[in-house]
Amino acid sequence: MQKIFIIGAGLSSSTLIKYLLDNSDEHNWKILIGDISEETAKKKVNGHPNGEAIKFDINNAELRNKLISEADIVVSMLPASMHLSVAEACIQFGKNMVTASYVSDEIKALDQQAKDKNVLLLNEIGVDPGIDHMSAMQVIDRIKDKGGEITEFESNTGGLVAPKYDNNPWNYKFTWNPRNVVVAGQGTASQFLHNGKYKYIPYHKLFERTERINILDLGEFEAYPNRDSLMYREIYGLDNVETMFRGTIRRPGFSRAWNVFVQLGATYDNFIYEDSENHTYKQFINSFTKYCVKKNVEQKIAEYLNVDPDSAIMYKIRWTGIFSDEKIGLKKATPAKILQHLLEKKWKMDEDDRDMIVMQHKFVYKLNGEKKRLFSSMIVYGEDQTHTAMSITVGTPVAIAVKMILNGKITAKGVKIPIEKNIYEPILKELEDYKIKFVEEEIDWKEKETGV
Amino acid sequence: MQKIFIIGAGLSSSTLIKYLLDNSDEHNWKILIGDISEETAKKKVNGHPNGEAIKFDINNAELRNKLISEADIVVSMLPASMHLSVAEACIQFGKNMVTASYVSDEIKALDQQAKDKNVLLLNEIGVDPGIDHMSAMQVIDRIKDKGGEITEFESNTGGLVAPKYDNNPWNYKFTWNPRNVVVAGQGTASQFLHNGKYKYIPYHKLFERTERINILDLGEFEAYPNRDSLMYREIYGLDNVETMFRGTIRRPGFSRAWNVFVQLGATYDNFIYEDSENHTYKQFINSFTKYCVKKNVEQKIAEYLNVDPDSAIMYKIRWTGIFSDEKIGLKKATPAKILQHLLEKKWKMDEDDRDMIVMQHKFVYKLNGEKKRLFSSMIVYGEDQTHTAMSITVGTPVAIAVKMILNGKITAKGVKIPIEKNIYEPILKELEDYKIKFVEEEIDWKEKETGV
Repeated sequence: MQKIFIIGAGLSSSTLIKYLLDNSDEHNWKILIGDISEETAKKKVNGHPNGEAIKFDINNAELRNKLISEADIVVSMLPASMHLSVAEACIQFGKNMVTASYVSDEIKALDQQAKDKNVLLLNEIGVDPGIDHMSAMQVIDRIKDKGGEITEFESNTGGLVAPKYDNNPWNYKFTWNPRNVVVAGQGTASQFLHNGKYKYIPYHKLFERTERINILDLGEFEAYPNRDSLMYREIYGLDNVETMFRGTIRRPGFSRAWNVFVQLGATYDNFIYEDSENHTYKQFINSFTKYCVKKNVEQKIAEYLNVDPDSAIMYKIRWTGIFSDEKIGLKKATPAKILQHLLEKKWKMDEDDRDMIVMQHKFVYKLNGEKKRLFSSMIVYGEDQTHTAMSITVGTPVAIAVKMILNGKITAKGVKIPIEKNIYEPILKELEDYKIKFVEEEIDWKEKETGV
Repeated sequence: MQKIFIIGAGLSSSTLIKYLLDNSDEHNWKILIGDISEETAKKKVNGHPNGEAIKFDINNAELRNKLISEADIVVSMLPASMHLSVAEACIQFGKNMVTASYVSDEIKALDQQAKDKNVLLLNEIGVDPGIDHMSAMQVIDRIKDKGGEITEFESNTGGLVAPKYDNNPWNYKFTWNPRNVVVAGQGTASQFLHNGKYKYIPYHKLFERTERINILDLGEFEAYPNRDSLMYREIYGLDNVETMFRGTIRRPGFSRAWNVFVQLGATYDNFIYEDSENHTYKQFINSFTKYCVKKNVEQKIAEYLNVDPDSAIMYKIRWTGIFSDEKIGLKKATPAKILQHLLEKKWKMDEDDRDMIVMQHKFVYKLNGEKKRLFSSMIVYGEDQTHTAMSITVGTPVAIAVKMILNGKITAKGVKIPIEKNIYEPILKELEDYKIKFVEEEIDWKEKETGV
């Protein structure tokens, strides 16, 4: 009997846990689920005889070491910043570990130690990062194997409400952590490569620098640059690529409207808005405009940001309720927290709503003297409120990776992300059984043009 | 004989050290000057029999404790982030301490400990912060003593090149730490109060939100908001003030041109520009624009930021040399470092150039049912390259404070800034002997109008 220890039983763990429990009899697995809330962990086990739920605090070093030392494999579904102590304990006790998070510099630094102890720390095996890496590398390797040379690579991913339930002017609802959406893009500049030129975009310009894309039969979307695309040149082995772009997908018009909040300063998270408890949303948004007694807040914003007051942009802003006299009611809140609080009411998924994950890669390559263009697109819909598209696309590849490590089909050691053929091939293959698959289109240069 | 220990012998210490050495015979002072460079410390002592120079590293705890325990008073002219260990040692050994820096939260937290040990930690006694506090408080207290009520307070300060030497299109040269100028305003939003309304301005809007001011016979200037003005309501005892604004002074037109660099992202300091060693300045600035083969960089910037290509703004930008094919030649540099490197050549003070510090407070108050407006302005010119206006205005009040603490004329204990009458009155009085004085103008409402 093999023991799987899953740390963190939040929304993102639902499908992961279900997959492992569903397959536990066949593979003789015992699955221990630890969460800061025993209640949450118990719900996920749902009385399954091969599952066990416990209250688990990552800061309890004694219990952490005990449970990791008793496990055969550890899956950390904690927030990215909390993986390090788990990874260190996994190395100490010689246990393999899987996460769906970006590899931090601290985790990266454990590579040699992990190899010395014959341990695999497999990261970025959810969705963006995860499925994006695997599906891109599959095409990249295939083109290279045929003797082709990739000159342009673009990859865009987004979590959105499914079209049938898309019924607000932003064409957007929170399908995942609202906070990440409100502060998205903050921090350092986004970086990419366009026709051989380095491009850097500071946060306050990010939502003006979108590109339009078409995805299969879902119509038009837009994508804004996502963090550091440059680093993927090396990771994907695309050292001579001329264009390298990774973006986040929204429906057209979202970014220009969101940019109003960004321009005003209403998305900032590094200062406390004075008296956020008693002020109204209108007072809040007015605090980012110039003082003027002759105009109302809407007029001031339209003028300040040079936006047509009757535009779809201002309609979206008005729709949020930001001009209302309702009290905010949050103590000592940052602008980002206040905006999140407002939007959580407006961008809430209804009980019957379903989400979707859309992903599209674009490859431009030369093969036998000919220039070709290939689009590879994925659409995954949520099943219900538990097995959302996000939970399915994060949890399924993590679960398959766990199985393949336990079965000895993945034998790599050290700190890894799933860019190697022997990792991504079997996982992508099994993902198709779960309706997570890519549709490829070779599209002529005249059609479906995009530009960064 | 009383021993004064000065830590840090950089540019800002020149006038401070000269004042103390000049007065050392009269007061029977021995002055020890420690700097990481013994050379720098020796230059400042300049062979004076009451001065002694030593190599001093603040991280050498043993030497630090020895020298502080032997001193009667300690002056820390280190960067603000390095005061804490000095302050802690001063408390440990019961020594008074003076700095010209903003009080950090860590220093503030030492208040009770300092009081328990009968120690004064006097901070913010240079210029902005320093002379601004003292001169503002003098007028505030005077108006209050007469029964007046202050409804508006604005205070602006700037370090600039003196008019006679002001000969470039930006009307600006580096008279102080260039880095601070390049990254000025970054971090959190600037905050102030305008006619009872809270106003927050994020960094990317800061240089569009200037106001015009006139200072005595020097003509027009502009001021952009400086950090958190709100906190000074309480500090200055202006709890019912309707307008509270602190700003940084430049000559008109500077901010709109600087805003071009801010908008592009070229002032950011939180990422490394790829291959900064071999790229040219033109490549660097182009990396912040959109890709387009049909327009040159200047045209692209003008269009991207909606600036007239033939405007004074674009003339200033062109004048910096940012469109040149010269190699940057800096390894692994951030945009801020690259821009600083370029501007250090163009905004350099020539040997004969002199700087100036300008400061202006505006008070609007009600007295006997009448609404009044008072401007209080200071202009200080540099004497030479050592005793710059900045060095004079920072060093002189620090030196006078040291003298008054040693003489027992300042007897306060705990963590202080110079807002109390018994501290600011004697210091402001003596500052007049050094040509650091304020000119007051009661100006009618029709004249000299300003707006935030």
